[in-house]
Parts: sequence; structure tokens; C-alpha cells
Amino acid sequence: MCATRCSGSLAVRYGTMRDNVINLKAVLANGDVVKTGSRARKSAAGYDLTRLMIGSEGTLGLITEVTLRLQKLPQYSVVAMCNFPTIKDAADVAISTMLSGIQVSRVELLDEVQIKAINIANGKNLPEVPTLMFEFIGTEAYAHEQTLLVQKIVGEHNGSDFVFVEDAEAKKELWQIRKEALWACFAMEPNFEAMISDVCVPLSRLAECISRSKQELDASPLVCTVIAHAGDGNFHTVILFDPNREEQRREAARLNHFMVHTALSMEGTCTGEHGVGTGKMKYLEEELGIEALRTMKRIKAALDPNNIMNPGKLIPPHVCL
Amino acid sequence: MCATRCSGSLAVRYGTMRDNVINLKAVLANGDVVKTGSRARKSAAGYDLTRLMIGSEGTLGLITEVTLRLQKLPQYSVVAMCNFPTIKDAADVAISTMLSGIQVSRVELLDEVQIKAINIANGKNLPEVPTLMFEFIGTEAYAHEQTLLVQKIVGEHNGSDFVFVEDAEAKKELWQIRKEALWACFAMEPNFEAMISDVCVPLSRLAECISRSKQELDASPLVCTVIAHAGDGNFHTVILFDPNREEQRREAARLNHFMVHTALSMEGTCTGEHGVGTGKMKYLEEELGIEALRTMKRIKAALDPNNIMNPGKLIPPHVCL
Repeated sequence: MCATRCSGSLAVRYGTMRDNVINLKAVLANGDVVKTGSRARKSAAGYDLTRLMIGSEGTLGLITEVTLRLQKLPQYSVVAMCNFPTIKDAADVAISTMLSGIQVSRVELLDEVQIKAINIANGKNLPEVPTLMFEFIGTEAYAHEQTLLVQKIVGEHNGSDFVFVEDAEAKKELWQIRKEALWACFAMEPNFEAMISDVCVPLSRLAECISRSKQELDASPLVCTVIAHAGDGNFHTVILFDPNREEQRREAARLNHFMVHTALSMEGTCTGEHGVGTGKMKYLEEELGIEALRTMKRIKAALDPNNIMNPGKLIPPHVCL
Repeated sequence: MCATRCSGSLAVRYGTMRDNVINLKAVLANGDVVKTGSRARKSAAGYDLTRLMIGSEGTLGLITEVTLRLQKLPQYSVVAMCNFPTIKDAADVAISTMLSGIQVSRVELLDEVQIKAINIANGKNLPEVPTLMFEFIGTEAYAHEQTLLVQKIVGEHNGSDFVFVEDAEAKKELWQIRKEALWACFAMEPNFEAMISDVCVPLSRLAECISRSKQELDASPLVCTVIAHAGDGNFHTVILFDPNREEQRREAARLNHFMVHTALSMEGTCTGEHGVGTGKMKYLEEELGIEALRTMKRIKAALDPNNIMNPGKLIPPHVCL
């Protein structure tokens, strides 16, 4: 099992996977079984081996046990949805909501192509425009109060059709839209493959980064969708291509490359959640500098001198000790 | 500058220092200046060098720059305070509050000795009993709603004299009590030194751990106070002793030792915030096992082969590569 540094969780409030792992056990290359921490919620007892292992993609050891922090189910929740004329408007609302100090629990952005995919896959009839989905939690009164505050922000940024639901079944149905987004994409092109990529930028740059990326995606002959964990400044694209057509594969790679470079030019990261693997190794030096990569390589060499743990992943081959 | 893994922050909601560092720059032993991450709020781009450096106590490199995550000041806040007949009652309320799902922003516990110190230092007349202090944030209505919910929990655990304030000056004055707690201790024994220690246990064990430690502290001839970041399961003691009397220094060390062992027996950590230094090296093997310490030593040796970065700290000398 190989935990990534960030979960694909939709929840802004509860943080990433990294924030919710209390400790873990891992088997290292030399056979040592390492327990990385106690069960206390916080600790200053030595190097943070828990965080070092999370997102190391199996290159430092095999994770065999994880202690997770439990979160109380919220007393009450409201799920809301609304539409926008442009993706920039939608991203601006996500930013304004986060900056307003409202403790929104989830804020998810779907572009019009993604909504179209959901309509095709699930026989829905949603307006095919950029869409935001929210979850507000707390007491009943507070969840309502937040809903109204965000409704006001939505109105200030050309948003429309603001709806919210409180009934358990209705909430589940609304979130289902988001949860099945990835599979819905394949309904548009059932025989195609998908290049799935994610980047993350400082929240203040999100609208600009999504808009620029979206312009390029829209101009491409390939079908591309955008889904964002907008509260974190993190967004994903699904780029569909015919695996039998080399020029489509190259075009998908070009779009991915454009998106990553746009994010890096805004002090962002080439991957917010998905990890490096082999596909994003080539961006790490631009993002972090050779010194950081050399440091990673030294750690890797110290813990796995024979390079037997998921070799060839994460650290670019040109990095020397 | 050497960041610890956890800040001494009182805020439960905003997490520890570790959670609020976006990236940092550090100079390593070989002169490499390493940037540990982008400015994105989350990233899966390689090993988490940010978290590795935080709390490494200067043994891996010198931190020269830190990018912190900013938090919006809450729209509204309420500060509350209440008294309890026993420290266990107070800890039980902190646990119940956290487990209820109430998004309390701060919950601080002070024992009767600490309150006495505050009375002496600041000419106050607070009831010298175990005391809890809370901060609730959000909208005005939500802060009030939380206040009432916690007041109910307090009533269910023998709490009394529940007061809350909303006026900015009154809130500042109330928090001042907590903020000056450490210095107030010296008002009781101006010529003494203090042994200050902290441990952290799973929240569910907090009441038991504090009660057991408190029993031992109360039975000692030394004056000892307890202050807890109760929402995190983290608590501190200040043990006052005459530096000219060796038996007092030994007694302080014995109490510290007792507290650490009590925490470790409950799957806690020997230090929640303060760090290891040299004083707590001897507890690390019991807490983490020799395999974790060997892993730390390997990382240290890989990044600082000549052992020039804060040598002799954090990793116990008996640990071999």
C-alpha cells in the first residue's frame, strides 16, 4: 500500500490525508519494521517519519498499518449548487468564500464539459455551464447562516440558480453527481483513454490559473473536463484521447504540460494530490530546485541503498548524490 | 532558527505550527540551500521535506525562511471560563466538547495551583480551583450557540460559575490570564528555577493521564502547576525548584519522569510541543522503538555526515546506523 501525500478527499475542512494520519508502520528495505509515532494527536518526538513516508510512493518502504484520526460526523449539513457564465466567476466565488472566513466544508467546481458528461452518463438535464457545489456543516442554524452568506457572494459574481438541499436523500443524490464525475467522462468517448492530471496553486491564483488552462483546453480538438477542489486551489483535468492515434496522445501530453507550466509560473505545484510516479518527475527540478531533489535522493539512498523499493519512481534519474 | 514540530499555539482549530507552514528554506550541512516546496496549499511533489525539517531541532539544517499559511480573523468570538471541583471533571468537559463535534477554537485547562500563581502575580481574586477557558468563533449567532452547548456540557460535569464575554477588551483581559501563566508561576517562588515539561496523549486518555500525574505532583513537596491545551490531549507542567538544592532538582526530574511514563503507558508521546533536545532523548526508544531511531540516524548521517548541525541533540547516542 502506498499512501499519497494528499487524499483525493473533497473536504476542505478536514484537510488532506497527510493531516489525518496519526502514525503508521512501514517495512523498510533492510527489513526494519518502523513505527513512526505514538497515538497522540501531536508530537515533537524526533523527525516526522509519518509525513516523510506519506507520499513517498513506496520508494522508502512499504506501509503496512495506518492509524487515522477520526472525525465526528457533523450535526447538520446543507448541500448547495449554483451556475456561472464563466469558469473564472465560479473560481472567484470559491476564493471569496474561503477568504471570507466562512468555514465551508467542501467547495467543488465542475466545468461545462464535465456537466455535459454527467448529463450524458446519468441521463440528467443539468444546465451545461460552470457549476459550484458546496457543503456547509455545523448546527442547523449555522449551516443555514453560511448558506445565505455564500448565496450572497454567488450573487455578487454573476452566479444564478442557487439551490440548496437538506434532506439526506437529496444531499446524497446531489453529491453523487460529483462523485461519479470521472466515470461520467468515459460516457462521452467510451473507447478512449484518459490522461488525468492535477495541479495546485496558491488560492489567490486559482481563478487565473484555471482560466488560462481552460482556454488552452477549449482550443484543443480533444475533449477535456475540469474538476477542482476549489477551496484548496487544486484542480484536475481529464483529457480524453484515442489510444490508437499517436497525435492525440501527444496533444494530451502537450495540454498536461501547458497546465503544469501555468501552475509552476504561479508558484504552484505540478501535482496537488496524484503524486509524481514517472510522469511528473521531469517537472520537479523546476518546482523545487536541484538541491531539494539531491536531498530526497540522499534520503532514498540512506534508507534503500540497493534501490529495491519501487525503483525508478519519484526522483528523476539525472539527480546525483 | 529552529522550528519545532508543534507550536505552543493555543488554538485547536488552526492546528499546530506543522499544519501552518506551507514551505521553508534551509541551509544544509553541505551548503545546499533547499526550498522544500511550492506556495500551493497542498502538494504531492516528492518527499515532504517541509515536515521533515520542522521539529528537526537544527540537526538537519538551518531554517532561514518560512512561508506561513494565513488565517482569516474570525468574524465574531466569545471567550468563556468556568470552574470545577476536580481536574478530572475539567478534562472530561474538554473531551466531551471535542467529541461532540463542536468546532471550539481553543480550550485551555489550568489547575488550582496555576490559578493561585495568577492571583499572586496579578493581584487577582479568581477561585483557586481547576478552571477551563474556551474560545468560540464564527458568526455571532454560531458563537453564541456553541457557548450554550458547552455551558450545558459543563453543567453535566459538576462545572460552575460559567461566564462568557464578548467585548474586545474583556476578552483580551481574560486571555491575558492564560497568556501570562508561565511568568505568573515565578511570582510564587521568585528565586527558583522551573522544570517545564509537556506530554500529549490520545484525547480519550487525557482525563486519566492528567489525574494520575496531578496526584503525583500534589504529593510532592515541590510546587507544580498544570496547564493543558486540552483539546489536543496535550498538557504542560511547571515544576518549581531551588537550584541550590540538589534533592529538589532530583525530585523535579523524578516528577517529569513519572509524567512521561504515565503518558507513554497510554500510547502518548514524551513531548507534544517542546521537543527532545537532550533531556528527552532517553524516552524516544520506549516511545518509538529502536527501528524508528535508527531510521532517524540514517537520515541525519545522510544529510549531515560530519555531524556539524546541532550535534548531540535529538538522536540518542547509543543508536547505531
